Amino acid sequence: MPPRPPRRDDPVRQRSLRDHNLALVLRHVTAANRPPSRAEIAAASGLTRATVSTIVDELIAGGLVAELEPVSRSGVGRPGTGIVPAGTGPAGLGMEVNVDYLAVCAVDLTGAVRHRQVRRLDQREHSPAQTWQALAELADQALAAVAALGLTPAGGMIAVPGLVEGDMIRIAPNLGWQQVPLPRPGDLGGLRELPLEVANEATLAALGERHATGLRSFLYVSGEIGIGGGIVLDGELFGGSHGWAGEIGHVTIDPQGPDCHCGSRGCLEQYAGEEAIRAAAGLPGRDTAKLEQHAAAGEPAVLAALDAAGSALGVALSSAVNLLDITTVVLGGHYADLIGWLSPALEREFARRVITSDWSPVRVRPSALGADAAMVGAARAVVQGILDDPARFLAARA
Amino acid sequence: MPPRPPRRDDPVRQRSLRDHNLALVLRHVTAANRPPSRAEIAAASGLTRATVSTIVDELIAGGLVAELEPVSRSGVGRPGTGIVPAGTGPAGLGMEVNVDYLAVCAVDLTGAVRHRQVRRLDQREHSPAQTWQALAELADQALAAVAALGLTPAGGMIAVPGLVEGDMIRIAPNLGWQQVPLPRPGDLGGLRELPLEVANEATLAALGERHATGLRSFLYVSGEIGIGGGIVLDGELFGGSHGWAGEIGHVTIDPQGPDCHCGSRGCLEQYAGEEAIRAAAGLPGRDTAKLEQHAAAGEPAVLAALDAAGSALGVALSSAVNLLDITTVVLGGHYADLIGWLSPALEREFARRVITSDWSPVRVRPSALGADAAMVGAARAVVQGILDDPARFLAARA
Repeated sequence: MPPRPPRRDDPVRQRSLRDHNLALVLRHVTAANRPPSRAEIAAASGLTRATVSTIVDELIAGGLVAELEPVSRSGVGRPGTGIVPAGTGPAGLGMEVNVDYLAVCAVDLTGAVRHRQVRRLDQREHSPAQTWQALAELADQALAAVAALGLTPAGGMIAVPGLVEGDMIRIAPNLGWQQVPLPRPGDLGGLRELPLEVANEATLAALGERHATGLRSFLYVSGEIGIGGGIVLDGELFGGSHGWAGEIGHVTIDPQGPDCHCGSRGCLEQYAGEEAIRAAAGLPGRDTAKLEQHAAAGEPAVLAALDAAGSALGVALSSAVNLLDITTVVLGGHYADLIGWLSPALEREFARRVITSDWSPVRVRPSALGADAAMVGAARAVVQGILDDPARFLAARA
Repeated sequence: MPPRPPRRDDPVRQRSLRDHNLALVLRHVTAANRPPSRAEIAAASGLTRATVSTIVDELIAGGLVAELEPVSRSGVGRPGTGIVPAGTGPAGLGMEVNVDYLAVCAVDLTGAVRHRQVRRLDQREHSPAQTWQALAELADQALAAVAALGLTPAGGMIAVPGLVEGDMIRIAPNLGWQQVPLPRPGDLGGLRELPLEVANEATLAALGERHATGLRSFLYVSGEIGIGGGIVLDGELFGGSHGWAGEIGHVTIDPQGPDCHCGSRGCLEQYAGEEAIRAAAGLPGRDTAKLEQHAAAGEPAVLAALDAAGSALGVALSSAVNLLDITTVVLGGHYADLIGWLSPALEREFARRVITSDWSPVRVRPSALGADAAMVGAARAVVQGILDDPARFLAARA
């Protein structure tokens, strides 16, 4: 996960002042709507023009930013040249292990996806070692593609549908994994040369959405067989004490409800997960049509099942809004495609259950990144580490 | 509410460096286990001894810290003199408006309560204007007491059992208040001279607990007729988007459950609020004995009602732990006295419903401040504003 932002009890001294200003200038460049000049960066950041120029030169030398056109100092009153994030520079590798597919992508410093590959593969039939082996093959292809683009891989982040603590995947129920460590370097092909981390897929998807949409505070809910969640508040991921926050799939809907694979009863997954919706709709196990195809055909049992799922989702999200005071909900995974059928029930529950809904209504929107959110978010997390602390990245390259 | 901590995109310049260091040194003084010397502050903060001495002198001149004994520079190798928060200095005024009482206290820079007064008075029989009038009388007495102690009132914070936005109390259901603004200066007696704010009582109580206990991450739950909540994460209040976070009283226990005064159905308050417990226990409305007296007498209906309430509380708190990843729960209000009868059911639900409970068990403890938590937290919030930004306080006094 990205390093924490500086805290108020960190002493500010000369060296950290330069590090701070490197990050500040790089942030102004990457966040700008159009390429800012050095003078504009100075005006926006409050730094002096001399400081900005020194810092920009250092960022150019380190390959993190570039100048749009050659500097010409002869013309008077000309606009300054624009500074942009470097198109050839570091790239973050995002990887996703999910129940029925593996995926790898690469994202550059601008947040653009430069490489993307998805492979259908059911992990439930394989051991974790076999999964890592298959993932390493995809990652090697991504590394070759990244090199061909003139980018330098800076690190990798693996998204998994489970709870992670440090390098340990504590539990990934829908994969059937418990206490699975990050792969050893020998299992990883070309990845072994890179700093590698693992994190929860919905948390990373929320990070991806945050950067793709510019939304600063939202609950991200990913509906698949399991239901994952991620929380973004004031532009930052909210991880809780251990990074496990957001497990909305295991909010209780009915204390006496059906057993859940997590060991509890009446969890949201048992009402609004894909298998629960299919069961409620009476769709046979061999049915491969997407839920939205059945819904679009107007099948009454499917529409009723989606309304019931939306209602359960609305109950859980209302509790979450009451607890967290975050009033934008982003629906990802298959929920993004089902939003039209889920929304009426969602809005009904919000109006009834969110105590602030009269003056602060809950907004619901579909995911911008769709099924790619977790892997793009994972790659973006790597890039974010560089944006947050460019001094460390430059020192490692020096 | 206290000002936000500095953010990474704040530029660090010379003036803010001094402001930052003022707060840093003051924080080291107030957080130390024993009075630190200037040299110890320098070692702990990473600042130079010369900088620390300048800053300490400025804090002494501003009345924020004091030296324990006269400086003697003749002895070689003697320990330095200790620096302590000033015992006579600014005081924060904390006020609480609750259903059946008003309360006012004053807290100094060390966090010590220097004045405290509680007046039984049922607000439901009075208009907001009458409540402010009664509160102003208590506050005037507190201001006189503070002056007699040699302290200078620095500001006031009013705790209310409702949702606050800016200076507006949006809704305080158990008071019957809606859209009640902060009192005008003319309604406030001596208070009119002070900066005044209003905030949610459970949020402020959580802040009070945070300082009284040193706990850095916990869910605070206050059980009265209503159920309030506050969230502290990594030492900071978690307010959400508008400061309304923590409304655990309106987490849904059963979507088809009894109507709640908030307009929803099946809210936690309807299962674990004091009136709900008394109704379930079959206690008549005229009964004035405390619930814990009935429980201590072993009355089976009361024990069953408390077990059911603990179970409902456990369902709501399990959902909160799954969402927030905060594994310490502090029970305040009447829950603090009932904890022995609530805990078995709570622990049963946590073990079943919290997905991380196998390797990260939820801990439950009673409030340290008891019924005073909200008013002490309110006063402490005022003091915290000074600790966070002593430069602003010193500038206002200059």
